[in-house]
Amino acid sequence: MEKKELLYEGKAKKVYKTADEDRFIVMFKDDATAFNGKKKGQIQRKGIMNTAITKIFFELLEEKGIPTHFIELVSDNEILVRGLEIFKIEVVMRNIAAGSISKRLGLEEGTILKKPVLEFYYKDDELGDPMINEYHIFAEELATEEELNTIKKMAFEINDILRDFLKKRGIELVDFKLEFGKDKAGRIYLADEISPDTCRFWDISSKEKLDKDRFRQDLGNVEDAYQEILSRIEK
Amino acid sequence: MEKKELLYEGKAKKVYKTADEDRFIVMFKDDATAFNGKKKGQIQRKGIMNTAITKIFFELLEEKGIPTHFIELVSDNEILVRGLEIFKIEVVMRNIAAGSISKRLGLEEGTILKKPVLEFYYKDDELGDPMINEYHIFAEELATEEELNTIKKMAFEINDILRDFLKKRGIELVDFKLEFGKDKAGRIYLADEISPDTCRFWDISSKEKLDKDRFRQDLGNVEDAYQEILSRIEK
Repeated sequence: MEKKELLYEGKAKKVYKTADEDRFIVMFKDDATAFNGKKKGQIQRKGIMNTAITKIFFELLEEKGIPTHFIELVSDNEILVRGLEIFKIEVVMRNIAAGSISKRLGLEEGTILKKPVLEFYYKDDELGDPMINEYHIFAEELATEEELNTIKKMAFEINDILRDFLKKRGIELVDFKLEFGKDKAGRIYLADEISPDTCRFWDISSKEKLDKDRFRQDLGNVEDAYQEILSRIEK
Repeated sequence: MEKKELLYEGKAKKVYKTADEDRFIVMFKDDATAFNGKKKGQIQRKGIMNTAITKIFFELLEEKGIPTHFIELVSDNEILVRGLEIFKIEVVMRNIAAGSISKRLGLEEGTILKKPVLEFYYKDDELGDPMINEYHIFAEELATEEELNTIKKMAFEINDILRDFLKKRGIELVDFKLEFGKDKAGRIYLADEISPDTCRFWDISSKEKLDKDRFRQDLGNVEDAYQEILSRIEK
């Protein structure tokens, strides 16, 4: 299927219309941003690597019964996806403390959480994507209670599937961000991407960071880390 | 019952031991603080007024089936309470947007929330009492799922009881903060206080603020506002 008009350009992806009004092409860019867009840069071959990584994860999840928006690869850095109404909610799932939860709860980075922690953020750049809870979601009508229950259930299932898959490949799934959408019939699908841009991956033994924290924290070897993730999950 | 040793001094209250190890005396101070202790002052007769206001609300709630730590008045500014293990959680219930939720969700002050919003905060001065969610509470073991379900149910019931009671007296219950504790048998009680220090009260017609926001925002007539609340609910 061919790309038509550009519908939307985000920080790391472009979305194009296609001849089918229910299908869109997502193009993964090499652009990298952090701290709500305050830090900007490029990561060589990121678009291609994140496309390949997202494809592997989404196919794995589909196989395990999680509906995703992924349909097929279009090119090295483009995928064909279902058209969905995306919930204005970011879902973050955490197994180990890192990033904002360390600050919020006063936990040292690397602290294993006694139970996985799910967090909701309001997708609103102007407000700085604030953390919200279920009652905010209902008061703002960002999702119904039934939709949110489905999303929560899927998020915990995805965590179990990915953790298990990654552990076998020597990777610790520290935390990750998910987005969900619904089709015209109201069926809920996992959307967006799953990649080192949206996850924290640590090498299980060395605890080396293999994700966008290398860019955020100027740790160097950013491309190598993304490539390492891709190489390990391709097996 | 007589006061013994001072157990704890907070921003607005002192807690004393008594001869009975399961009973404590809470003394309400005239001291007022805001913005996590950054603003300090005194409100004349606040201790006496908040004692009388808390007594009325707690007796009302007990009558409606909500267990509270309140036992009896000891003096004008002291109450006898049950000894409880207090959960390290502040529960905030909101009916109308004001304060931090306005900023968080980009809502104008006075926006009526489509559904009451319950929020949890981690009682930790060093961390600045951050907002948390249920998963943080379980991961940090601040309460069990069963305990939290009881707390949530009680918070919504308290909101219904207080809103109804206040509406009849021309007062809008904008939002309020609650604390809960459990006794040795694990029974959960409402603790702390309910007063213009811990609630936002607006006159229904004029929308005039009748609570600690008059102190926070230097609006003047702070004592008069507390007295107005007391006079209206005494009837």
